[in-house]
Amino acid sequence: MNLQRRDFLGQLSCILPSLAALSSGSAAEPKQTPSPKTGHDMSGMPASWMGKEEILLLVYPQFTALDLFGPQYFLSSLMGAKVRLVAKTHEPVSCDTGAKVVPDSTFQDAPKSPDMILIPGGTLGTLTAMQDPETIAFVKAVGTNARFVSSVCTGSLVLGAAGFLKGKKATSHWIVRDMLRHFGAIPTAERVVSDGNILTAAGVTAGLDLGMYVATKWRDQEYSDCLSLLAEYAPPRDPHDVPARASQLARQKVGRMFVDFKSKVESACRGQSVK
Amino acid sequence: MNLQRRDFLGQLSCILPSLAALSSGSAAEPKQTPSPKTGHDMSGMPASWMGKEEILLLVYPQFTALDLFGPQYFLSSLMGAKVRLVAKTHEPVSCDTGAKVVPDSTFQDAPKSPDMILIPGGTLGTLTAMQDPETIAFVKAVGTNARFVSSVCTGSLVLGAAGFLKGKKATSHWIVRDMLRHFGAIPTAERVVSDGNILTAAGVTAGLDLGMYVATKWRDQEYSDCLSLLAEYAPPRDPHDVPARASQLARQKVGRMFVDFKSKVESACRGQSVK
Repeated sequence: MNLQRRDFLGQLSCILPSLAALSSGSAAEPKQTPSPKTGHDMSGMPASWMGKEEILLLVYPQFTALDLFGPQYFLSSLMGAKVRLVAKTHEPVSCDTGAKVVPDSTFQDAPKSPDMILIPGGTLGTLTAMQDPETIAFVKAVGTNARFVSSVCTGSLVLGAAGFLKGKKATSHWIVRDMLRHFGAIPTAERVVSDGNILTAAGVTAGLDLGMYVATKWRDQEYSDCLSLLAEYAPPRDPHDVPARASQLARQKVGRMFVDFKSKVESACRGQSVK
Repeated sequence: MNLQRRDFLGQLSCILPSLAALSSGSAAEPKQTPSPKTGHDMSGMPASWMGKEEILLLVYPQFTALDLFGPQYFLSSLMGAKVRLVAKTHEPVSCDTGAKVVPDSTFQDAPKSPDMILIPGGTLGTLTAMQDPETIAFVKAVGTNARFVSSVCTGSLVLGAAGFLKGKKATSHWIVRDMLRHFGAIPTAERVVSDGNILTAAGVTAGLDLGMYVATKWRDQEYSDCLSLLAEYAPPRDPHDVPARASQLARQKVGRMFVDFKSKVESACRGQSVK
């Protein structure tokens, strides 16, 4: 990538989210010191930090907001990248914690060959999504053309139903991870699992780790370090440690609460399983 | 708290977000085994796990989505609690990463004496919010009646401007933390700082820790452990470690990028400072 410095500075509006907000007005003249227009000094930044990725984040009724807004922080911090929430229609979509988000694009008007599509998880809403022909057709079509096909938490059930997990190592929320076998996947207990162009994150907050993984892959380690500093986040040192730290009692209770959900997932997976 | 078991089960729609989605239909008869109506077995749950808190999360133009949706996951997982996004109007509000959220309440129709108000951070949007008389009047009025007055990241600048930090230990994003002195606060480098009823979290992802802190406080440790398992999250063992882990080079670059922002914050704080 060999962008002119002027272009590089001219696209500051697509920069790290905190920086995006700092940027007032349009393209600034290149400066070596803090610019009154852009409000920050970019002189130390390599041109390779600028990209032009198209990233789609699927939203569907009852998705888990944090599954989406964890990675969204990091992905929308990739300078030059365009991140869009995509849904069936432009109507606001309720997540499973009640908040409503407004989609940027629909299945019809979203880019057909994005660099990445990401599917957040949920519970019953995800079961509905994985059995919805229109949603699966969209994920299949767009995912086939994407550089990365990715999910957070139970979103991997949707990827499985769309046929992307055959023979692939993949993960999901720990409660349903083993059911990925129904789709021909190899369930793998890591925070982020990469196999070919399939990128799956474990439960909820593992989506932050996925965001940092992509930042390192598409920019570099130093870029990812900057985001880590801005977000005051670092992935857990031991990826297996997080659920392990909670008490055995809590683990049993949570497991028991999901007995019925697991059996519903099991049925849905069998119905959609790879023969 | 001595809720009837029927009432307890009858309010499952307000339960942990993943559980909320599992619950189809209205109040179910109490059962000791997984109920086909509610989809999960709550027989092991103590009645003290049910509350009825009113929680307001402020949204304003260019807030940072993850500052809000980190704690929102945990807060909306408090059984019986009502969590509302509140803004000046019902119009969708853009966060600094581009996504738009729909407020549930306005300054006019929101509960006047909530149990908690939380202010997310941002950059220039937060500077505007902290200097906006209408926003500050709302935060003052509601915060005065709240059990917890809280912030994530630079949201503490808004609390400072509203006069809540005088003589209080408080934190913020590491880039601006020391400026809380202008409001009479004692800047404190921890992930979550509690002083009286003022609860402040450090940068962005420290909001997740704040959510877990409130879950432990308002429910108990085991409840918080369950949420930790569901979110696959555990606060960093060493709260000072997160920014420290990034390279010195990244730290310098990020620091340099924010020179101008810091000077803008400095001016805004001086303009609003506690005499």
